[in-house]
Amino acid sequence: MRTLQLSSSSLGLLLLCASAHAQSQDPLPSWNDAAAKKAIVRFVEGATREDSAAFVPTGERVAVFDNDGTLWAEQPMYTQLVFALDRVKALAPEHPEWRERQPFKAAIEGDLATLEGGVERAMAELMMATHAGNTVEEFAGYVKQWLATATHPRTGRRYTDMVYQPMLELLAYLRGHGFKTYVVTGGGIEFVRAFSERVYGIPPEQVIGSSIETTFELRGDKPSLVRRAAVDFIDDGPGKPVGIQQHIGRRPLAAFGNADGDLQMLQWATLGRKAGFALLVHHTDAKREWAYDRKTRVGRLDEALDEAKKRGWTVVDMRKDWKVVYAEPLVHSASRSEAVTNGP
Amino acid sequence: MRTLQLSSSSLGLLLLCASAHAQSQDPLPSWNDAAAKKAIVRFVEGATREDSAAFVPTGERVAVFDNDGTLWAEQPMYTQLVFALDRVKALAPEHPEWRERQPFKAAIEGDLATLEGGVERAMAELMMATHAGNTVEEFAGYVKQWLATATHPRTGRRYTDMVYQPMLELLAYLRGHGFKTYVVTGGGIEFVRAFSERVYGIPPEQVIGSSIETTFELRGDKPSLVRRAAVDFIDDGPGKPVGIQQHIGRRPLAAFGNADGDLQMLQWATLGRKAGFALLVHHTDAKREWAYDRKTRVGRLDEALDEAKKRGWTVVDMRKDWKVVYAEPLVHSASRSEAVTNGP
Repeated sequence: MRTLQLSSSSLGLLLLCASAHAQSQDPLPSWNDAAAKKAIVRFVEGATREDSAAFVPTGERVAVFDNDGTLWAEQPMYTQLVFALDRVKALAPEHPEWRERQPFKAAIEGDLATLEGGVERAMAELMMATHAGNTVEEFAGYVKQWLATATHPRTGRRYTDMVYQPMLELLAYLRGHGFKTYVVTGGGIEFVRAFSERVYGIPPEQVIGSSIETTFELRGDKPSLVRRAAVDFIDDGPGKPVGIQQHIGRRPLAAFGNADGDLQMLQWATLGRKAGFALLVHHTDAKREWAYDRKTRVGRLDEALDEAKKRGWTVVDMRKDWKVVYAEPLVHSASRSEAVTNGP
Repeated sequence: MRTLQLSSSSLGLLLLCASAHAQSQDPLPSWNDAAAKKAIVRFVEGATREDSAAFVPTGERVAVFDNDGTLWAEQPMYTQLVFALDRVKALAPEHPEWRERQPFKAAIEGDLATLEGGVERAMAELMMATHAGNTVEEFAGYVKQWLATATHPRTGRRYTDMVYQPMLELLAYLRGHGFKTYVVTGGGIEFVRAFSERVYGIPPEQVIGSSIETTFELRGDKPSLVRRAAVDFIDDGPGKPVGIQQHIGRRPLAAFGNADGDLQMLQWATLGRKAGFALLVHHTDAKREWAYDRKTRVGRLDEALDEAKKRGWTVVDMRKDWKVVYAEPLVHSASRSEAVTNGP
């Protein structure tokens, strides 16, 4: 809505052109032709046409995407937590002490009720125990191996096949218009890097996320980066603009999220400036995916939904706006990464 | 030297071709035709020709450059420290207490001897006092304003005109061959970002450096990132590979430095792997620039020089290898950044 106000004079013509073009080759075929899709196209056309009042030069076209619940499913629990629980089980034979110690005992026994009593703390402890003590290459290997075989209990799909087709189209559409696309996740930066290029076409240097400390070690002639059991950075909520600045050094022009943890990132992209686009994916589709917002614990969307109304941000109604939800399964070893053209 | 061993079979032909090409259009005209230049060309040709045994795909072509002493001059003291001292003087009227308190008193009075008694600690304290308490935009503004007018006491040049012409040619040569070029500085990330795109053609998202903590604040409808007087990350020595992993998520293929603080970055680029190129700029030119290595305090090159000999890294003898040292002064508001082609 914000963009509309800014360039209403030139938008009529632009929309006519965009519409004519869309009929021949729709860049967002999985999106129904409703308000959300129109707002996206309006924003992209406005930012990229040189004769537009909202024109933005290529280098400044930065688009940031939350991961869990925005690019792939996050229910009934964050995929990285499922991975951590499976890692606990895999490592349990080396840790007999875990059999009697919480939260490890519950994790090994699959006793999620106990875990859920204090999920944040339990999650942090399980993460540290299973994500540290290895090198960055080793950790990436564990993640890739797990993603290749683990399947979701309800859909039977691999987790990397629970990515949203409409969002993949949106990523490609933005990249096709000179945007640099980033993942900005509350999850672990190295966890997401293990699949982001293959699954989203987003290279590791364009992934921003939470991190644990790493240290450089040289053993003989072999250098390595060793992961430590200490939190380095939490890329969530007000941490997201901080992570974006640290990695990119520019304000994003467009921000895409689905939960309260994305609120500040969307504010940072839009408030107090002329340009800027913000979009929330609202999970309204209990049949094809999940329906949740204000009262869920995983991916709560409450404050940000109110803010979206107040600010005129685009809200995607998944049930009504998306023709399909999940992408076609990715054949093993296939990749969605387009040819990479390096910048400077 | 490492690359030569790897692909000696195909190198003869490659070098012939490169040589024929070089005669018509030399990509490194400010480099004398000696060992260092030959090693650079050999590495780049090997990494980028598809028929080469050392071929590396585009996405993996990552080149990291130290800043102080590698891309621009660092004597008699780091430029950022000169900036900090000038900021102390500019802010002094608002801080009457500084007149009697060290290290501020010495900074205001230009008493560098006192400062040099404990330079690291004094520097840290001055940095915190002058670099924090503002927003990232405000800080970038101070740096740009200062760089536009401050001049070096010996050369009379602006600091951004004390960048090395041969290194600018090297950056352009690498980018022309599909490399993504990064600055990896022990200095402040936001300090270098304030000029890296204009002066080196390196955009803010490809600058890695030391940082202080920042926090997101929303005052009314105005979001900002406020810089705090607390160290977040020191991107020096063993911190450089850590910073590289955090930002890029890949091992660099080529690393360029000039001091012991770059040692681990060069090790990370080369040791225990087939590909990888490392280069040290050795300051041997007392007449045109400065001559220093093992015994200087600013930019000491001691351990890394021994390691270079042991590992066969390329060492640039500034006096013999470089036809010119400094680039032509950059006309105000001009830029060395090429047209930015965004990747995915």
